[in-house]
Amino acid sequence: MTLTRIHNFNAGPAALPLAVLEEIRDSFLNFKGSGMSITEISHRSKWFDGVINDAVDRTKRLLKLSDNFHVLFLQGGASTQFCMIPMNFLHGDLSADYVNTGTWSTKALREAQLMGKQIKVVASSEDKDFAYIPKDIKFSNDAVYIHITSNNTIKGTQWATFPDTKGVPLIADMSSDVMSRPFDVEKFGLVYAGAQKNIGPAGVCMVIIRDDMLKLVPDTLPSMLKYTTFVSKNSMYNTPPCFAVYTLQLVMKWLEETVGGLENMDKINRKKAQLLYAAIDSSDFYRGTAEPESRSMMNVTFRLPNEELEKTFIQEALDNALGGLKGHRSVGGCRASIYNATNVEAVEALIDFMKEFERKKG
Amino acid sequence: MTLTRIHNFNAGPAALPLAVLEEIRDSFLNFKGSGMSITEISHRSKWFDGVINDAVDRTKRLLKLSDNFHVLFLQGGASTQFCMIPMNFLHGDLSADYVNTGTWSTKALREAQLMGKQIKVVASSEDKDFAYIPKDIKFSNDAVYIHITSNNTIKGTQWATFPDTKGVPLIADMSSDVMSRPFDVEKFGLVYAGAQKNIGPAGVCMVIIRDDMLKLVPDTLPSMLKYTTFVSKNSMYNTPPCFAVYTLQLVMKWLEETVGGLENMDKINRKKAQLLYAAIDSSDFYRGTAEPESRSMMNVTFRLPNEELEKTFIQEALDNALGGLKGHRSVGGCRASIYNATNVEAVEALIDFMKEFERKKG
Repeated sequence: MTLTRIHNFNAGPAALPLAVLEEIRDSFLNFKGSGMSITEISHRSKWFDGVINDAVDRTKRLLKLSDNFHVLFLQGGASTQFCMIPMNFLHGDLSADYVNTGTWSTKALREAQLMGKQIKVVASSEDKDFAYIPKDIKFSNDAVYIHITSNNTIKGTQWATFPDTKGVPLIADMSSDVMSRPFDVEKFGLVYAGAQKNIGPAGVCMVIIRDDMLKLVPDTLPSMLKYTTFVSKNSMYNTPPCFAVYTLQLVMKWLEETVGGLENMDKINRKKAQLLYAAIDSSDFYRGTAEPESRSMMNVTFRLPNEELEKTFIQEALDNALGGLKGHRSVGGCRASIYNATNVEAVEALIDFMKEFERKKG
Repeated sequence: MTLTRIHNFNAGPAALPLAVLEEIRDSFLNFKGSGMSITEISHRSKWFDGVINDAVDRTKRLLKLSDNFHVLFLQGGASTQFCMIPMNFLHGDLSADYVNTGTWSTKALREAQLMGKQIKVVASSEDKDFAYIPKDIKFSNDAVYIHITSNNTIKGTQWATFPDTKGVPLIADMSSDVMSRPFDVEKFGLVYAGAQKNIGPAGVCMVIIRDDMLKLVPDTLPSMLKYTTFVSKNSMYNTPPCFAVYTLQLVMKWLEETVGGLENMDKINRKKAQLLYAAIDSSDFYRGTAEPESRSMMNVTFRLPNEELEKTFIQEALDNALGGLKGHRSVGGCRASIYNATNVEAVEALIDFMKEFERKKG
């Protein structure tokens, strides 16, 4: 039980900018003079139109999207995208390429297979427990799309650059690194991201879709499972997850107005990651699990000499107001997730604690 | 722009209990001494376990559910249930019965048809613009399930009692009257409700499913579209919409501890509806649109002598801190939604305004 806030290294749901949380709190009983909470206003009102349109506009500006891209807000998380993507784009005998770089990539390709869709796993890093991003991948000439996971939250790896797919649309699960750096969206047919790591709370999934992909969507799909429904209704075919969209909008505003855009965000994120990896690399006590050139700027995974020490480390860190440092339950160890909202000060506090812990126990 | 809160008659998203909103606001930067916002805590934490388990337990107690029912929290709203229900339960040549009582019933049955599922519309009130609930319906002997919409938000009608289906599982969309009154859940195979009218904010859909229905679910469905996934993982196969579940939990707590259960809630709701319908019926200026014996206790739909007066009525009401009185855009007119969180005081204020408006303009 603490009266003050902690430094939050959760993998997701994760830290949000304090200014965003304060704005939500301060206006929670009366949103923009409506006399109602943001949770009580109609999604068909001028107030909510202002929220969702601003969220779309800021996303377009931050990513420098051209007019042939649509920004959508869906429910069901990235996990629902795992099935919607093959449902919408992969028909008959056509096939898609998947690159398997960890737990979430595996889930994505298994959902396609579960429905009997034709896919090829053209590269995998499973041979080394997903500790690296494959290079020099040979993609199929006839793939409808190529699916990758841009950042692997559990394994702590990240695509530093995106592959040349020779015009085949790339589709990326960017749940854990969207809006953490600028990237060239033009080669992507679709980008999706559960909000709860870098851009908002759980309950909304951002989908950025290129216009030409919409031609592949069959009419016979249920309304809530086809992208065309959301494009034609500005994500409001039915009631959207209003509070989550609102929070996301405020995060985009923070990114644009306080951080100053994705180039600045990228610089800050690289600084945080470099500080933390340097602390790990300069020690024999801590050991990073990802291969250095594949390391994630978002999720820094590391081990201590044994599991007993890891348990003590995580508990003592929490006692020192450093939370969320436990590795994913499927892999164990430690993980510091340093998304956009986790600031340099938090990383420096963690490094100080790590040094002190090593001094005592090392 | 108003500095104070208004009386909120929105159809959804709709009013929430003030005490719930205040609790969210007051703990928004530090949830239960975690040092994090409810939007920042892990769904795999003791804190969120406390939230979701309490939401389930309170729902079970409020509805007096036996152990063969599961309470789930899904995303995608009732609209996603329109497709999930036939996907999960209706296979091969088997057929289901649908009763069409308005816009949402129509959407539900169209989604089944869109997928090529076999359904029969066994009764409809379309002949009178859905102003009544059909009686003495002859259901099919071999229906897999019977689908109804318990309350019709747009047309202002409600099933006063539920039909005897001779053992065929009833499935009901209760988005706009769940938790407004006690009912016998035993005859229902599945009940679903988008939260944003009576039990929470937009972004979570409550599903109550009877154990025997799970046997019908095919393994080949995508994970996020089969009920068995959510049952086996306590709604946490993937990250749930944490904030919406949390708000719903607080609404359930309010229902149990402040209102004192669904019998009390029902009494209060009936009182509100009776006051409002009595005001309409005692006037030649206002005219109810639903047939009296099919009237909804939740959505009171009415007309004024002409559309010009309706427009003035809605605007002047808002100037008097009475919001959300515009009828659905597909039908026009006026509508006062008086869900659980809209109190007697609000209804009395509305009636006073209606009398004054009639005196001036009638």
